[in-house]
Amino acid sequence: MNNRKQVRSSWFAGLLVGAAALATGCAQEPPPATANRTLPFNHLVDLTHTLNAAFPFIPVRKLTYPFKLIPMATLAKNGVAANSWQMHEHLGTHIDAPNHFIAGEKSLDQIALKDLIVPVVVVDISAKANLNRDATLSVEDLRQFETEYGKIPAHCCVMMYSGWEKHLNDSLFVGLDRQQQKHYPGFSNEAIQFLLAERNIAGIGVDVLSFDPGTDENYTGHKTLFAAGKWGVECVANLAKIPKTGATLLVGAPKVEGATGGFARIIAIW
Amino acid sequence: MNNRKQVRSSWFAGLLVGAAALATGCAQEPPPATANRTLPFNHLVDLTHTLNAAFPFIPVRKLTYPFKLIPMATLAKNGVAANSWQMHEHLGTHIDAPNHFIAGEKSLDQIALKDLIVPVVVVDISAKANLNRDATLSVEDLRQFETEYGKIPAHCCVMMYSGWEKHLNDSLFVGLDRQQQKHYPGFSNEAIQFLLAERNIAGIGVDVLSFDPGTDENYTGHKTLFAAGKWGVECVANLAKIPKTGATLLVGAPKVEGATGGFARIIAIW
Repeated sequence: MNNRKQVRSSWFAGLLVGAAALATGCAQEPPPATANRTLPFNHLVDLTHTLNAAFPFIPVRKLTYPFKLIPMATLAKNGVAANSWQMHEHLGTHIDAPNHFIAGEKSLDQIALKDLIVPVVVVDISAKANLNRDATLSVEDLRQFETEYGKIPAHCCVMMYSGWEKHLNDSLFVGLDRQQQKHYPGFSNEAIQFLLAERNIAGIGVDVLSFDPGTDENYTGHKTLFAAGKWGVECVANLAKIPKTGATLLVGAPKVEGATGGFARIIAIW
Repeated sequence: MNNRKQVRSSWFAGLLVGAAALATGCAQEPPPATANRTLPFNHLVDLTHTLNAAFPFIPVRKLTYPFKLIPMATLAKNGVAANSWQMHEHLGTHIDAPNHFIAGEKSLDQIALKDLIVPVVVVDISAKANLNRDATLSVEDLRQFETEYGKIPAHCCVMMYSGWEKHLNDSLFVGLDRQQQKHYPGFSNEAIQFLLAERNIAGIGVDVLSFDPGTDENYTGHKTLFAAGKWGVECVANLAKIPKTGATLLVGAPKVEGATGGFARIIAIW
């Protein structure tokens, strides 16, 4: 909340500086600052979890170290501190590119920037997810959302808020049962098909490990979404802190040649 | 240019949808989309270079692989494509955190988000850099800039545009001479001191490998800037494509615990 208040007061202060500049008419030497009037928002929320070696991940073969920070130089020894990272492309708050599942589709660096800065809507399924960890965001949930908040606009990101963030530091986030089957909420494949065919979205996002429900080992929704050339963001933080509609999403995706995804800085402004 | 035009037309289309909604008065079922009226800009420029294993870097001991993309799964073999990355924190279009040179200062994850989304001004020293690859952005250059464009606002990013981006794919980008001494333009330490003491900036940026001039092996300006808790961005792209004042900078810094810097998605909107 502090950050948001500070941004808002800086924005208002900028307006006052601008108004003062207009009122005085002629410029001093140097003329008054103008650029701080340009911050085009009053609210700012970080939708990114901090990444470290303890961050949960989907267990897959050969993925023994999802993230390692390896010191290369230290202030004490070298007078400069620097590290290298070893990281999986699909870890932490991150984006999936269409080439993650579809041959010949766009890699992360090929997603147009205009498709990464888009309106965002948040569909809250936390009530049913609290009752059933295999709950899915359905077409009916989308229709209910639209009745309440208006039609989902074209070229937007539809976020699923399941409330799963509260499990980030316990075993329910990956949700393995005794048969090593994963359990967490996700988008139904039909909901993704609807959003592609009827709403022409830019992408989707979730506050869980993956946007297919944990029980879907076939990643059906991934294949549907990526075949349409769209992106998905996963492990998104703080979705309860942004409005259901009206915010703009900034997906700070790492521009790595040929990547199938990557750790991203994701931000909402409004 | 295409991206910018598309964003602008989508923005105007959003306005028209909104105006139509107002004109018709009562809502359909579902009510008309509103969220696509929220994109708070008309222009969008990517300030990020694409990263691959060929990206130039400052040669330092032990840094034999600045970036490697290592396939972990492929569509042909596994039905899913994914890679891991090995990467140095100070490679490509990236941000430096204060703990890169100052013990006890902020790591990358500790930089407040409000300090990463700030007004940006661009000081063009390309004319003198074309004549002298060791040129520095001086206090006099800043005063000259202010005479022309107005006082540099508090809490902004000051970018140096030297035109060095044109050398990205040739040996002049690192600029090693026969004595292995680096040569490229940078901020003078006095200019950084002025921006901190007199203008209270948020950070600085450059279109070269490092914001200290290549000949300064002591990284004097890094120590000055980081002791004040500010950040720097390096290898910034496309600075000639944004206005000298009036744009907002979005530094999509990777939120990695304890990092001294990291590959970032850097964007300008206005």
